[in-house]
Amino acid sequence: MTSSQGESGLGPGALRERPVGLVGLGLIGGSLGLDLQAAGHEVRALVHRASTAERARERQLAQRIDTDPAVLQGCGLIVLALPLDRLLDPPAELLAALPPDAVITDVGSVKQPVLERWQPLHPRFVASHPMAGTAEAGVEAGLIGLFAGRPWVATPCSTTDPAALALVQELAAVVQAQWLCCEASAHDRAVALISHMPVLVSAALLEAAEQGGRAAGAEALVRQLASSGFADTSRIGGGNPELGALMARCNREAVLQAIAHYREHLAELETLVEQEAWPALQQRLQHCQALRPEFL
Amino acid sequence: MTSSQGESGLGPGALRERPVGLVGLGLIGGSLGLDLQAAGHEVRALVHRASTAERARERQLAQRIDTDPAVLQGCGLIVLALPLDRLLDPPAELLAALPPDAVITDVGSVKQPVLERWQPLHPRFVASHPMAGTAEAGVEAGLIGLFAGRPWVATPCSTTDPAALALVQELAAVVQAQWLCCEASAHDRAVALISHMPVLVSAALLEAAEQGGRAAGAEALVRQLASSGFADTSRIGGGNPELGALMARCNREAVLQAIAHYREHLAELETLVEQEAWPALQQRLQHCQALRPEFL
Repeated sequence: MTSSQGESGLGPGALRERPVGLVGLGLIGGSLGLDLQAAGHEVRALVHRASTAERARERQLAQRIDTDPAVLQGCGLIVLALPLDRLLDPPAELLAALPPDAVITDVGSVKQPVLERWQPLHPRFVASHPMAGTAEAGVEAGLIGLFAGRPWVATPCSTTDPAALALVQELAAVVQAQWLCCEASAHDRAVALISHMPVLVSAALLEAAEQGGRAAGAEALVRQLASSGFADTSRIGGGNPELGALMARCNREAVLQAIAHYREHLAELETLVEQEAWPALQQRLQHCQALRPEFL
Repeated sequence: MTSSQGESGLGPGALRERPVGLVGLGLIGGSLGLDLQAAGHEVRALVHRASTAERARERQLAQRIDTDPAVLQGCGLIVLALPLDRLLDPPAELLAALPPDAVITDVGSVKQPVLERWQPLHPRFVASHPMAGTAEAGVEAGLIGLFAGRPWVATPCSTTDPAALALVQELAAVVQAQWLCCEASAHDRAVALISHMPVLVSAALLEAAEQGGRAAGAEALVRQLASSGFADTSRIGGGNPELGALMARCNREAVLQAIAHYREHLAELETLVEQEAWPALQQRLQHCQALRPEFL
């Protein structure tokens, strides 16, 4: 699905007509601020703490940075670059400060609950998810070019304003992201499978290596012998715990369904080992080897 | 455990007195040949196919390379750098060609079955496992410096000749590996936890993403949205299928036990999501975050 230009008078280049507002200057907000300014856009930002504002000004993450929501007045597009839990429970003063004629979008990594919460709150809300990241967070994390070549997924619904959607698409184009539209529920099931459930799969591996090593009286040995394969497989399980728990919370149903799929496949592989069905096991692994490049 | 010099007359520098023999010139054998020659050792190698011998000579993986087991005559140390299945079922002509006074070691990634098979076959056998690798295999794969800084695990038993063990330790030192001794059974349980079971955990993730994507009608989407986290977690599951199946076969009991540990931990995490026990889930993920560096 791609959107055509809407009837509200916004056409290509509409993003340039008024400043872009950023709510939050962490990894995503800060990177957007840098990319937008580099492309010649005027950027204003609202942050929570005075100390953040100060540091963000030093880093020049936007032209105007304030802790007063009034900084958003006059913005044509406002990006809510907030953590998912704060996005789902927005403070009243933020809501009051959002101009009714501005287009509002978010960057949350779960879309159905965001859409349900925000669609009734603002007539020009567009749910979206730029899928880029690093291991860093906070006001120091933002960097130029974070979104280049990465997917920027929008999940419009039947009531989404097509012109608003087009403006968000223009933002994605400015930061050189790959624009993609899908249903919010499809997005959430997909990210559960390729991102949220894998965190738990990877975390369970770390726990199993720890406890299995202890049970075998080989606690030091498992640590000494772990190599790059273990490091790779355990990386996201050893990642940001707040984020991992938050994703599971906000995408609970899809994560549970993904774990159910996962459990089934692991049980099948376990049965093949149990039954010493080596050619069948090798065939399954051959399939996995052929499958993986499709995901890269 | 570290070994003292034995009583058979082999002391430090004994590795230099006679040529080192390599059986197989794949990734491990080829890399050993290059490192040993670079350190001034004389290397002779037995390979299976004439075409391999030819290519190995072009790559100068050893000074003498032949398909005739007689090439091993006069060697003081012989490294069986064979795939695990061939190592566990050695051809009679190879056994006949091994000088009774030579020290024999292997490079297999499972140690208990190798020790059980080879200890009765040769009085100076030492089971060992240099833990280094790349994604490559075959006569083109060997490279200089593969073992530097990587563990080289030996699993001596009560009847292992201490002087033979010392000679293998000297080999590990020449290639700058980290020498480590442990029980064969402890080795096998440890590698099941940090290497063999993770292959199945990672493979099940690929299968779940494929099948879950299909079930959600989002086959293309899961492939488009998969990012570096999924790439890392699925890497070893999409690796060499023969090797993955072979490890499960040769280390079956320890792999099944490791899967059981794993299943238990994943089920606990799943229950926390099901019960919406978010602080507890976050605590578990915090533990994983703290735990992972111990394995790096």
